[in-house]
Amino acid sequence: MPLWTIHHTPGAYGAQDKRAFARDITGYYTRIGLPAFYVVVVFHEHQPDSFLVGGEPAVDTVRFAIEHIAVHSDGPRQRQQISESLVALIKPWTKDRGLYAEFHVDETPRELWMVDHLEPPTFGSEEEARWAQANRPLSR
Amino acid sequence: MPLWTIHHTPGAYGAQDKRAFARDITGYYTRIGLPAFYVVVVFHEHQPDSFLVGGEPAVDTVRFAIEHIAVHSDGPRQRQQISESLVALIKPWTKDRGLYAEFHVDETPRELWMVDHLEPPTFGSEEEARWAQANRPLSR
Amino acid sequence: MPLWTIHHTPGAYGAQDKRAFARDITGYYTRIGLPAFYVVVVFHEHQPDSFLVGGEPAVDTVRFAIEHIAVHSDGPRQRQQISESLVALIKPWTKDRGLYAEFHVDETPRELWMVDHLEPPTFGSEEEARWAQANRPLSR
Repeated sequence: MPLWTIHHTPGAYGAQDKRAFARDITGYYTRIGLPAFYVVVVFHEHQPDSFLVGGEPAVDTVRFAIEHIAVHSDGPRQRQQISESLVALIKPWTKDRGLYAEFHVDETPRELWMVDHLEPPTFGSEEEARWAQANRPLSR
Repeated sequence: MPLWTIHHTPGAYGAQDKRAFARDITGYYTRIGLPAFYVVVVFHEHQPDSFLVGGEPAVDTVRFAIEHIAVHSDGPRQRQQISESLVALIKPWTKDRGLYAEFHVDETPRELWMVDHLEPPTFGSEEEARWAQANRPLSR
Repeated sequence: MPLWTIHHTPGAYGAQDKRAFARDITGYYTRIGLPAFYVVVVFHEHQPDSFLVGGEPAVDTVRFAIEHIAVHSDGPRQRQQISESLVALIKPWTKDRGLYAEFHVDETPRELWMVDHLEPPTFGSEEEARWAQANRPLSR
């Protein structure tokens, strides 16, 4: 469900970094019970002439575009809490490395979503727990 | 209106495949009367170290991010039907080829949309039929 | 806040063009008081076999996907006005150069957004004006 698109300047992350960062992101969602395989992360490295912040070529910058599908927020206060927890998640991979970062999250309709051609189980259900345990979609 | 972004692992689709798949996607929308040129498909091939599923490099994977603008769904049941019809559309290009697939659809505000600098005609209108017939935007 | 993803065919824009275009886009938002550094623009050049319009390889085409976060529209009429102002913004960079263009804008929840690990100030606030003046995020 979550799809993370990570735009970054050259050299921000090597192959090992990307894998470790994607595992941290995955852990953020598995902690609330979601199957690990729901979490898709795409890294896009851009040359500075194609990645501009305020009209200037990006320098040591990471711009996250995150889509949440399976679970939606409930009101402004919870959204702020989610944002704070995402800051804690990304900080070791951004600010602590001297990288400027911005993120935003969109929430999209749950019923317009399919995983391996199957309708994903209800959030928090026993079936979802089975998917999480198997770490793959299970036919009914 | 629909914008399909298709993230895939190397070798999933060749140039001929991409064109044929994009034509199938286009047919899905022209069948309800939309002009063919509304349908934009972008394929992104990613190296596995930049495309991770559950924290692991993607293997034979296709992740669709779809945006619907011109026509919106009406309630959860219709959204499920749309998802089922999209599964039927992509299956020959994914599961039937041994590719793991996930998609989600977002719906965005119709009035925040312009085609060739023109406001697109109302869905189902005679003017839209003229655009579809000409397969290009027509000034009023 | 605004994230502009600009898909284009090869040769549409050189490095100087991209910077000048990104500055024009930035000016569109700073005119309403937003800090310049909120404006992120990503250019994606695609080979025509990976960028299809109506099932055909794209020719001299620009497809904009725009995300608005900090400021949302208020009703259909205002959305139409925003679309008209965006047409005026992009026209010198698209139609006037013989490029076919389509754009759509999505609006995403303001509270699910962080800039440099900080909660951005309220739109129109004195603190926002200070961020704009400094052209960087300021800790409270």
